[in-house]
This record gives sequence, C-alpha cells and structure tokens, in this order.
Amino acid sequence: MPIPALQALPPGVVNLQDHEDAARQRLDANAWAYFAGGAGDEITLRANRSAWDGLTLTPRVLRPLVGGHTRCTLLGRTLAHPIMLAPVAFQRLAHPDGELASAYAAAMLGAGQVLSTQSSIALETIAQAVLPEPTRGPLWFQLYPQHDRGFTLELVRRAEAAGYEALVLTADAPVSGARDRERRAGFRLPPGVEAANLAGLAVPPPRELAPGQSALFDALLHQAPTWDDLAWLQAHTRLPILLKGILHPDDARLACELGAAGLICSNHGGRTLDTAPATARVLARICAATEGRVPVLVDGGIRRGTDVLKALALGASAVLVGRPIVWGLANAGAAGVAHVLRLLRDELEIAMALTGCHTLADAGPWLLDTQ
Amino acid sequence: MPIPALQALPPGVVNLQDHEDAARQRLDANAWAYFAGGAGDEITLRANRSAWDGLTLTPRVLRPLVGGHTRCTLLGRTLAHPIMLAPVAFQRLAHPDGELASAYAAAMLGAGQVLSTQSSIALETIAQAVLPEPTRGPLWFQLYPQHDRGFTLELVRRAEAAGYEALVLTADAPVSGARDRERRAGFRLPPGVEAANLAGLAVPPPRELAPGQSALFDALLHQAPTWDDLAWLQAHTRLPILLKGILHPDDARLACELGAAGLICSNHGGRTLDTAPATARVLARICAATEGRVPVLVDGGIRRGTDVLKALALGASAVLVGRPIVWGLANAGAAGVAHVLRLLRDELEIAMALTGCHTLADAGPWLLDTQ
Amino acid sequence: MPIPALQALPPGVVNLQDHEDAARQRLDANAWAYFAGGAGDEITLRANRSAWDGLTLTPRVLRPLVGGHTRCTLLGRTLAHPIMLAPVAFQRLAHPDGELASAYAAAMLGAGQVLSTQSSIALETIAQAVLPEPTRGPLWFQLYPQHDRGFTLELVRRAEAAGYEALVLTADAPVSGARDRERRAGFRLPPGVEAANLAGLAVPPPRELAPGQSALFDALLHQAPTWDDLAWLQAHTRLPILLKGILHPDDARLACELGAAGLICSNHGGRTLDTAPATARVLARICAATEGRVPVLVDGGIRRGTDVLKALALGASAVLVGRPIVWGLANAGAAGVAHVLRLLRDELEIAMALTGCHTLADAGPWLLDTQ
Amino acid sequence: MPIPALQALPPGVVNLQDHEDAARQRLDANAWAYFAGGAGDEITLRANRSAWDGLTLTPRVLRPLVGGHTRCTLLGRTLAHPIMLAPVAFQRLAHPDGELASAYAAAMLGAGQVLSTQSSIALETIAQAVLPEPTRGPLWFQLYPQHDRGFTLELVRRAEAAGYEALVLTADAPVSGARDRERRAGFRLPPGVEAANLAGLAVPPPRELAPGQSALFDALLHQAPTWDDLAWLQAHTRLPILLKGILHPDDARLACELGAAGLICSNHGGRTLDTAPATARVLARICAATEGRVPVLVDGGIRRGTDVLKALALGASAVLVGRPIVWGLANAGAAGVAHVLRLLRDELEIAMALTGCHTLADAGPWLLDTQ
Repeated sequence: MPIPALQALPPGVVNLQDHEDAARQRLDANAWAYFAGGAGDEITLRANRSAWDGLTLTPRVLRPLVGGHTRCTLLGRTLAHPIMLAPVAFQRLAHPDGELASAYAAAMLGAGQVLSTQSSIALETIAQAVLPEPTRGPLWFQLYPQHDRGFTLELVRRAEAAGYEALVLTADAPVSGARDRERRAGFRLPPGVEAANLAGLAVPPPRELAPGQSALFDALLHQAPTWDDLAWLQAHTRLPILLKGILHPDDARLACELGAAGLICSNHGGRTLDTAPATARVLARICAATEGRVPVLVDGGIRRGTDVLKALALGASAVLVGRPIVWGLANAGAAGVAHVLRLLRDELEIAMALTGCHTLADAGPWLLDTQ
Repeated sequence: MPIPALQALPPGVVNLQDHEDAARQRLDANAWAYFAGGAGDEITLRANRSAWDGLTLTPRVLRPLVGGHTRCTLLGRTLAHPIMLAPVAFQRLAHPDGELASAYAAAMLGAGQVLSTQSSIALETIAQAVLPEPTRGPLWFQLYPQHDRGFTLELVRRAEAAGYEALVLTADAPVSGARDRERRAGFRLPPGVEAANLAGLAVPPPRELAPGQSALFDALLHQAPTWDDLAWLQAHTRLPILLKGILHPDDARLACELGAAGLICSNHGGRTLDTAPATARVLARICAATEGRVPVLVDGGIRRGTDVLKALALGASAVLVGRPIVWGLANAGAAGVAHVLRLLRDELEIAMALTGCHTLADAGPWLLDTQ
Repeated sequence: MPIPALQALPPGVVNLQDHEDAARQRLDANAWAYFAGGAGDEITLRANRSAWDGLTLTPRVLRPLVGGHTRCTLLGRTLAHPIMLAPVAFQRLAHPDGELASAYAAAMLGAGQVLSTQSSIALETIAQAVLPEPTRGPLWFQLYPQHDRGFTLELVRRAEAAGYEALVLTADAPVSGARDRERRAGFRLPPGVEAANLAGLAVPPPRELAPGQSALFDALLHQAPTWDDLAWLQAHTRLPILLKGILHPDDARLACELGAAGLICSNHGGRTLDTAPATARVLARICAATEGRVPVLVDGGIRRGTDVLKALALGASAVLVGRPIVWGLANAGAAGVAHVLRLLRDELEIAMALTGCHTLADAGPWLLDTQ
Repeated sequence: MPIPALQALPPGVVNLQDHEDAARQRLDANAWAYFAGGAGDEITLRANRSAWDGLTLTPRVLRPLVGGHTRCTLLGRTLAHPIMLAPVAFQRLAHPDGELASAYAAAMLGAGQVLSTQSSIALETIAQAVLPEPTRGPLWFQLYPQHDRGFTLELVRRAEAAGYEALVLTADAPVSGARDRERRAGFRLPPGVEAANLAGLAVPPPRELAPGQSALFDALLHQAPTWDDLAWLQAHTRLPILLKGILHPDDARLACELGAAGLICSNHGGRTLDTAPATARVLARICAATEGRVPVLVDGGIRRGTDVLKALALGASAVLVGRPIVWGLANAGAAGVAHVLRLLRDELEIAMALTGCHTLADAGPWLLDTQ
C-alpha cells in the first residue's frame, strides 16, 4: 500500500476544535454519530473536556528555558513527546486511507500509536508502513479478546510477528455502552469498511437461554475479558501488556500486582458507562495507587497542549488522543492527522515555556495548585 | 376488560427522554400540563433529574460477570428487577387503556406496581388483569385517606379483597402544591376520566369559617393524614403499610418505630413542595436512619439504568418511575409502557456489567466515591 | 381621596413572576427601567432571587396541622402574617392611584406597610386611608434625612402626627448606586409624579469645591446619615426607629447597642451596591449578631411563599416585598396589589402545611438542613 | 505633536462594558481580534472577569464619610487614585492618535500609565506630552528585552532620558500564547502602524536547528528574559524595576529577594497561557508572599469601581486597565479614554461610600468576608 498523498487542510483551522468543526461538515451523519457520540446522555463525554478546562496552571516565570524539550521515556523507549494515538476502530469510515494515514502521520511526527483490534486495515499493513520510519514512536496493538480463544491467540501471534511492541487489553467494555446517538442515527458499517483483523472469525454459536435468563449476563458476557484472561495472555506472549480503562484505584493496585506493564486511565472516551468520572478527576488517584511501579497513560478530552501538560503534572507518563485523529483524517487524510499532532505538540511546547517547565520532569502537582 | 392491543412505537425512541419528547407531541396541552408539570418554579422537578446526573459511577473492571442478574427481594418476595411503577393518577388522560395498559405491561415485564387511589380504572379491574400473570411483580395500593373514614376503610377492604399486597400511605401531600403550570393551563379532567375508586364518595360538607380563619388550616387540612391515621390504619388492616414521601431522617426513624413496613423516599415528583431536596441527595440519610429495619424505595427523576444502580448503591431496595410510564402509555399504550420498562431494565444490566456488579448486592457506596 | 376602584387582573397570572411578566407589558420603558433595574451589572439583583431558590426545605410529614396559622408578633403587635410592603418610591409611575392603592390593598390583606419618604402621595393621605381599617398591619414611615435638618424634623413630626408607628432609617444609600439601566434609559420623573412629602424643600445651596476635591466626598455625602443622626433622631421622636440596609453583623451589633428597635437585612433590592451579598446569604449571621435583642426583617428577591418560610427559618420576624407590589399595582391597581399579597400568603400557608409547620414558630434551621 | 482634539462619545455609553460594545462596532475585524482576543479557548480571559464578579462586598453603614478620598501612594508618589493604564501595544490600531491620546487623557485624569515597548508612537513623544501636566500620575516604561542587548540597553537609556520613572519587565510572555482568534482572523499590522520604539532594530540572524531540535526551545527562547536579565538590568539603570506577570507566590518571594521594586499580578489579560488562574483568585496569595516589602499591582478583568475596591481589599496598591482604554480610544480618542477613566473613578468613589470606606486604607479583607 503506497504512502498516502497529502491533502490540503480546510482554511482557518488553527486548533483541534476547529478540526472537529470542519470534520462535522465533511463526515456523513452515520460516521459522525459513530465517532462523535458517547454513551447515554453524553455526560461523561462532556465532563472529559470540562475537567481539563477546570484545572488551572499557575506558572513560574523568568526561568532559563533554552534547550528544553518534550522528550520522555515509556516502557524503556525514549519518545520525542508524550502524545500517542488512541485506538479508534474503523477509521476508513472517516477517510479511504484510514488507519494507514493515521499511522503514517504519527510516525512522521514521532507519535506512538495503539492500533485497534477493529481497525479497518490489517495490522500487518500498518506495521509495514510504520516500523521503518526512524522518527516513529512505539507501536502497540489494542486487544479485544474474541469469543474464540484460538482466534484471539492467533491475533496475538500476528501482532508479535508484525512487530508490535506491546498489547493493550481493553478492560472497560465488557459490553457496548448505551450508544443512543448511534442507535438514533441507525448506525451501520457501510460496504467496504470492516474489521480487517477479524476476517475469518466465525460467528459464535447462539446460546440457548432458559426463561428468565439474561441475554447479557448469560450469553454476551461469556466473551468479556476478566483478570483470568490477563493471566492467560501473559502466559502466551512475551509482549508487555497494558490495561486500558482503569478508573478505580483498587483496580490500579490489582493490575500492578498481577504484572500489568502499564495502565491507561480511560473511560473509553465517554462511549461505555455514562456518568463515569472524567479521567482528569481520577488520574491523580490512579497514579498514587500505582506507587510508580508502572507508567500510567490517560485519554479522554485532551484537546490542548495545556491539557497534555496538566496530565503530566497529575502523574501521567503520556496521553492518548482519539477523536481528534479522526477529525484530522476526515479533513485532510494523513496531512490532517499530522496537523492535529503538530498543533498539539506545538501547544505543549508553548505551555511548557509559559509555565516555566524546561522539561516534562518539571511538571508536577505544584502547577495545578491554586489554593 | 380485554388485554390491550399492542400499538407501534414512534420511530427513533431509544431512551426514556425520547419517550418524553414523543409524548409531548401526542398529549394535549391539558394532559401535558398535568403530567409534566411540578410545583412552583419546578426547581425540585429539575433537581430530581440533575441530582442523579451529578453522581458519578466509578467502575471496577475485569470481574467475572457471567450468571449475574438483577434479582432482588422486597417485603419477602423475589423481584426480577428493582423497577416499579409509581402511583400516577388519571392515566386515561394519556391513553384510553389507562392504568390497565400500564398494569399489564408491568406484569409482563416483572415490574411491581403501585396503583393510585385516583386511578381512572377501578382497582378491582387492575387486580383481575395482573394477579394471574406469573411474571408479575408486587401489586400495591396507594392510599389517600378521604374525609369520610368509613369510605376510607371501605377502600382498604376493597384493596384487600382484590388481592393487593400492601398499602402505600402518601404522607407528603396534605394539600396540593402550588401547581402553577396546571393553573395557567386551566387544567381540568375531561369527560369520561374520573377517580374510579372514589365513585359514590359524598362531597364533604362545607366548613363554616370564622373571620380570620384559614381555608387551609381550619378546613382543608382536617382531611390530611397524620401519624394517628397510620395507627388507625394499622389497626384496621392486615396489609403491610409503607409510607411515601419521607425526606427527613427523623421521620424515617419515627416511621420505623411506629411499625411502617417500608419507606418511599420521595418528593412527589416535584409536584408538592417546590425546593424540597432532590431525592438522590437525601436518600443515603434516609437509609442510614432506618438502620436496615425496613426497606427504602425511592422515586423522582429516575430515567436511566445508571440512575437505578445509583439508587441501589445509596441504599435503596427498589425504585419507582412515574412520568416515564405515562409517556410510554401516551406513545403506544401497553407496548409503550413495556418499552419504557424494557429500556430501563436493559440499561440497568449494562450499567451493572460496566461497573463490575455481578448482582445488585455488589452495588454500594464505593460506586459513588470519587474523592 | 376615595378608595380605589377595583380593576380586573390580566388573565393567566397565578404567581408573582407572572405579575412581573404582565407588568413589563404595561409599564413604559421609563418606569420599567426605574422599578426593575438594579445597580451595576445587576449581579446582586439576580443573586437575591437565586439565593432563596438555592435553599432547600426538608419537610416533616404527618404532623397534625388543623388550627395552624400564620400569625406572628412584631414590635408588640400581632400580625395576621409576616408579609409587609417595602418602601418603594414614586408608585404613581406605575398606576395613577399609586401608594394609596398599595396601602389600601395592604390594609385589606392585613399586611404591614413602610411608606417611602419619596412617596408620590402625601404621607397624611395614606395614613387617613389605612389607619381606620380593622384588618390593617403596622404602618411605618421610611426616612431619608434631608440636607435641611429642620425639614427632616418636620417630616418626623408629620409622620408622628399622622399616626405612623415607627420610623425606618435607610442606612444603605448614602449615595445612589450606579444605576446603569436607568441612565441608559434616560430615566426621569414624568410631569405629575413627584416626592409629595418633600414639597417645599429648598434645593441645597451648591458647595464650592477646591481643586482635587470630590463632588461625592466633599459635597454630596454631607447629606448622608450617620450613627450620629440615629442618636439625633432618637432624641427627637418617641417612635421606635428601625435601621434598613444592614448586611454586616458588626453593624447589627452596633445598632442593638445604640438602641435601634429593629433591623432590616437588605441590600436595597440590588439598587445600590452591586455585588453586595444576597440577603438570604447573610440573614442568619445578622440574626445571630442581634442575639434576639431586636427583630430582624428581610427583603430582596422574595417572590414565593417558600421564600417567606425560609426567611423565618433563618431567623427573620417578617419579610418585605417591593417590586412585586409595583407589578400588582401596574397590572390592576389596588386589586393587583391585593392579588400579589394574597398569592404570597396562600403560598406561605401551603408551604407551612407541606413542611409540617403548624405555626411560624415551628420554622427553624432544621428546615434548611440538607447535609 | 498637538494635543488631540476631543471627539464626541457614542450615545448611551454609561459603563465600560458599553464602551466595549460600542468599540466592537467601530473597530475592524483585524483590530478587534487583536485587542479583544485571548489565548486558546479564552478561559482565562473570561475567568478574569467572572472572578471579580464572584467576590461579594459586605458593606458597613452609617459611617461618617465627608472628606473621604481615593488618594494613595505608590513608590513614593501620591496618586489621585489607584487606577493606571496597562501597557497595550499598537494603540494606533484603534485610533490615529494612539498612545498619545491615551497618555493625554491619563494625565488629565491623574492616572498613572505604563507605556508599552511596542507602542506605535515613540516613547519620547509620549513623555513630552505627559510630563508637563500637573495632574499626571506616574509614567513607567514596559520593557520587552530584545535579542540585541545593546539595543535593549539603548531603550532603557532612552526611557531614562525621556523621564520615565520606572521600568516594568514583563515576565509572563517568553513566547506568544496560542492566539487562536488572531490566527483565525489572519491578524497583521496595517501599513503605518509599527513598533515605533523598535525602529532600527535589526532582525535577528536565523538560528540553525539540528534535527529534532525545537524552534521554540532551541531558538526563540534565547530571547526570553530570565532572572539573570533582571540582575543585568538592575546593574545598568537607576530606575526602579517592577515585574509584571507574577502569579506564583514563590516568584513573588524571589522577586522581593532579588530587589524588584514592585510586582504586577497579571496573566497578561488572558493573552498568553490559557487556564492560568484569574488574577482575583491569586492576588491575596501574592500579596501575602511579599509581606509588604514591595507594592503589588494587579490587572485582568477590572471593569467596575467595585473591582478596584476589591483589588485593594485583597492587598493591591493599584490596578491597571488595558482593553477598556482601547475601547475608549476607539470610541472617541482622548475623550473616550478620559471617559473610561472617569467612569471607573466615579464608580470607585461610589463603591467606597456604599461600603463605608472613608479612604482606601479602610478597604481590607473584611469587605470580602461573607461566611
């Protein structure tokens, strides 16, 4: 697959919100409902944004800043900056180049990337495009265990073989949330967009339900991952495994004890449990619970360089952005994604300079203390 | 009376708010004002909703969930789920099938039901339709004591004879609230809709008021129930008696001491005292005051499965929903009510799965703790 | 002057907000700006309302309420209810009958009244109309000391002679506030509306200002009352003197020590100092500072019977309403004022019944405690 | 350059917000974006305003006020009032008379002024116009150190020679903020408007960046001032040096230790770091950190006399206003600026009278205490 051709950006787009506004004009209603929507009344979706906005940054001034930088380390690698691409399914809904464009832009901009199990382009295609790039960040594979353990293991083997450096087990979506916006829009995948990595996966046999049994608890949830699945996965792969969707400090502690290589503090972008807390509100507790044993990443509502800096001040090692990648993709393919990443990184540098942070290690709770 | 025929739902209705929006189009202004309105400036009406929204649920992940369920017990019975129908008067204002459609849908969906004294279909008709259903939940009768104690006693006897399993004494409406919206709309019952259970009740003789006496304190309130009426009722019926409208912990304690079988934490759906606290804000105090002696139910603003889960996490044994039943009724009769109940139960199951609750007993204050 | 003829109310007016909405249609822009406006950005004006709304009432239920009443005592008199008319200037801007209509309606409804120094009908005319009424409440005279002490003393003598029972010294308006709305509207008194009590008062001679002197501090404020003026007034009248405009507890204490007969916790309806605290927020502190030595009244944003009950629960002996009187006056003259008072009193009775208050003495801090 | 001719004000302008609304009609989109905009989502820009609004003033009453005044002292000078003009660049964007009109109005009204390095009229022209005025307040020069230290020193020498009384070193803008509004508007200086003081400054030679180096950290920030630059400046000038842009108490302490003559608590009007705290929220901490060693001034969102009084109650010695000066300038040149200053001072006097403050020394934390 060739490297995507560069497209022109819509005019007047100077930040990630502008990207969203422009993408709303370009995406059809079906894709817009899928990507923009959240669960239920979208309270968590909105709270994710407003929680970052509600944190204030109290700057220090007149510090020497020349030679500062955004470099950081994560699972033994040095990153150019702490901004990664969150796993987002079916990106060909937004642009024909789909995940390939995102991956290529990420590699050019030095951003790490987590490819979704449900990517609309095969994991091997992405790895081939990205791994040779010298500026690339880490490449991880997000795993939804499938009903067929054999198929799940095959996915893991394929990811290992293709060169993925870690697995990200999604813990917060044992079932889909109440995606009212999607249901109202009658969302469905259009022809030609499919979960490329799951080609050949047999449909699970229907389960017989006795009267009074629940289609959820007695059928669908057989497929949901548990702590046992983490142990099983650890036994079958040499890759580090991160857990995505941790909001409770007890789960953070348990994950550390059970050997998780890292945590992603996430509420699935407000797409599963509505009224789950904004990640900015629980991040510090999650970091405290890990006691530094593993890195904590965070996603949910990060749209500004100041948000990135706040996340690091609260203890995160890196951040992931999801929807903005889709907006960039919709607006201008690979060039749009690159623009989104560039804006965010530039804003991060400005935020560091304006708060007196020479490096990201200078960010800490003092930045957020206004009492 | 035959079982109601099923009607088709309006399109695009995927949650209870959609039901409300659709019902607003179908109900005439008179009925809309009656059912949708609250007292005064409707501050409590709105607070009931926003208080549930304002509680956050912090989920646990990766727990084994297969075989989970929504079953619970209440006054010695096992319920399929903790969702009941609140007493709502004059349901034939919303649909010709009125309370019969609600009752039938409730029985099919395993939802308990509290029939209003002011039902527009006779209590016996409802009982005959519901009691034979094997999936039905509890059937209770809500009691407004009438000015004529003999008539009140006759109502109790009829409820006993018809098979009602408990009485619910409404404590929070000694007088009607300032229902400004109804008054502005000039609400009145249309021909053919009446309080079927009160047929034959004589109009009370007018009281002579001395100069300076109050039409409220010196006349109307003679009819309002007091703690003495609870004792009188207890002496005259074998049915358990629950008190509805408890917001103060001292009343909760007193009710336990005086032998109430259960409490319903309620502000009458914001229809009596405006600026009374939202039930979600006082529920935990009420449950604490009972010290587990009696079950506490709650109503007011419950529109989401997450709201049900929050209520149980705060200590409630079950919840009641009122207006949404009317919206379902208006939209599609019995099928509409069944749809409302089904949506709420499905959302409850999803909320349990997404928070890691295998059964409702797993829900507790930890779910709501975000500090 | 004859008793005002009764006018019909506009249709659909069922509460005080409806009165305001109707009056906005009837008053010309000049009068509307004068009566409805506040100082500055009208932050205090709005806060006065929202502060009452923000207090919750937690009711007790099933208490015996027959024979309850709204009676209370104030400065040795028994009142039918605790609702009084605040001093509002120039009421003939709103209706040709002006203060006479207000006074007559107040007397009929048993409401006490404070006549403004700047009433547009002479104080003697009002007293003659009101004092013979058997149902009337207290009649007080609000005093703005004038630049001419002799004239001020004459005003006091006239009030005494006419039968006024107390003086209310306004303490919170040494100068007018920044009434931007009035200034933008170019407010001026129309022909025929004037401060009737001040007829014959000579215009003060202009003060010569040295360079750098302030027209405010070095001229206008010579006329502002001080604690010394309170002592001077006390030495010259047998009438009890209340202070209006107390927001700071130290002033409440000082007023008690200096022999004030009562206090009115007021921010002048948001018309003087913008961002002064809402009265509902400081009332409890003021009452605490008086230690029961003198009665405390309150005004500012009271529009509902529940507001009246909250004021008494916080420690007030009575409340005053200002603008709603003007709206009633504009809408239907004396009948409109009577309607406003009747609505408020009826709502108070309903609020008492719904909270379990048999008399106003039952209202206390427990009503407002929601923690 | 002649004294600016006086222009007529637009009608109906009675406060600073009215000035802003009128200026929006007069300024072109380019200038409006430049002056009105802030950084990022303009959260800090809005918070600056709302923080002042959110503080309440609890007045004392009946105090003797005759002879009160707004006089105060600052760096050894007596000011007629504590309102100064903040440094605002390129004022000829708003009006052809630019900074000369502002300066002339300030001098007439006794307001101190801080001229911007980036003024569009030369610093000498301003000084010649202002210094002879007997009513003028202090004249200070705001300094952005330039990449060429020799040129910077020359600027200092020119300011000294022209009669400027202090230097104000801006500490909070090592780089420009993310001015999205400006970028979206494509802001650029029109022909004829330029940084008059910087004429002749050579463009800095471009820096070679190695791969992976940052255009910000490795090039642009070489020009940003540091604490070392403060020491260098102190060694090269006899003028007192104030630091502008202090939000952190540790910087306030450090500035005192390093000999700063005063501090300006500022977030650059919300134009640099978005989500920096509102100045009203941190002012008290900054004042506490200085322990009275140096005066603290404040800017950001001051639009009312009550805001000025609140700033002084929190510990500030004076306030600066920026954008309102531009609005006045746009609306009516020197007369417009004079009107803005006059409104603010009049409102301050009224606020003092209404809170019982005889002089500014009477303002203190007690004014803001509402608990």
